[in-house]
Amino acid sequence: MDPSIEEKVAEAAIQIYAEVGWAGFTFDAVAARAGVGKAAIYRRWSTKMEILSSAWKAAQPGFVEVPDTGSIRGDLVALAKALLERLDQPVGIAEVRLLLDTKMFGADATFPDLDATRRRSRTFMRAGIERAIQRGDLPPDARPEMIFDAVRGMIIHNFLLMPSERMDVWRARKDAYAEEVVDLVLAGVRARSAVI
Amino acid sequence: MDPSIEEKVAEAAIQIYAEVGWAGFTFDAVAARAGVGKAAIYRRWSTKMEILSSAWKAAQPGFVEVPDTGSIRGDLVALAKALLERLDQPVGIAEVRLLLDTKMFGADATFPDLDATRRRSRTFMRAGIERAIQRGDLPPDARPEMIFDAVRGMIIHNFLLMPSERMDVWRARKDAYAEEVVDLVLAGVRARSAVI
Repeated sequence: MDPSIEEKVAEAAIQIYAEVGWAGFTFDAVAARAGVGKAAIYRRWSTKMEILSSAWKAAQPGFVEVPDTGSIRGDLVALAKALLERLDQPVGIAEVRLLLDTKMFGADATFPDLDATRRRSRTFMRAGIERAIQRGDLPPDARPEMIFDAVRGMIIHNFLLMPSERMDVWRARKDAYAEEVVDLVLAGVRARSAVI
Repeated sequence: MDPSIEEKVAEAAIQIYAEVGWAGFTFDAVAARAGVGKAAIYRRWSTKMEILSSAWKAAQPGFVEVPDTGSIRGDLVALAKALLERLDQPVGIAEVRLLLDTKMFGADATFPDLDATRRRSRTFMRAGIERAIQRGDLPPDARPEMIFDAVRGMIIHNFLLMPSERMDVWRARKDAYAEEVVDLVLAGVRARSAVI
């Protein structure tokens, strides 16, 4: 197989998905965007799902990894920065659309790979929080899912509501913003625990 | 005009938009879902945008209002509960899709009304935080947008990642969850301020 066709289709698939989601994700749209003949696509993939699935794997879904930097702040800031980086590319939007489509139609009907990604993602997050609790870096009652939702949710919401004319400032402040988000969440988790 | 046609179309429009977004939002799809003849729809609306716009107004976009309950905790819990309620209906998903579509195509190309909603929303939030600061309920450096992104973002992210088999528990715990989210965010805002 010609690797450049694979690459072109993967890139086009993510772009198309980011723009229109599952409802507009067709062989025609992907072929046209990739500049690849439909016959060549049909030779390699027999369903839309297969195209999306290989594109998804090629794009290495970024919400999976919580790196082990030695501190929970370092781990979460790295997670936040990676998310901010991806949101500014089609793959980041495609991820959010996938979550929505899966929510509406169920993982089986849309995209079973997302479920696997989601599960791995939770596992990574739990492991990161577990390490932090063992180090005494977080209180024992810290809830991995709340922290995950808080850091990722805040960033995604902020991005979605950001008007296009403010995106330059958003880009310039990305790294500082990652730290502000994480510091707010960690302060909340630690303070809540101190009160209870 | 027959009000029941208006209502049927508004409801169908929100459902269709929630399912497929702008890419799949067509006169045909809306007419079929509403059980209304296309001619009747064309008599009332000349563009897809007009259909969506009247449906949006009828659905009273809920992320606008931050009620004045007398305490910032009360205000935010009310906001959180209203959001949780809506997310469990097509209108909540339609809102998230609208944010995504607007992000991809710009407000003018998709849905100018969203921009107005977004602006009103920020104004309400700022007013709520301002009241809280004046009451001494929040530190003077509290940032309305961070609080808004934190409460709404956390809830939306949690919802999007919630597997369908856990939705019953999600529904049963909605009110408690609203309080947990708000308490985490407020603890973070207050603790951050105490540190600086």
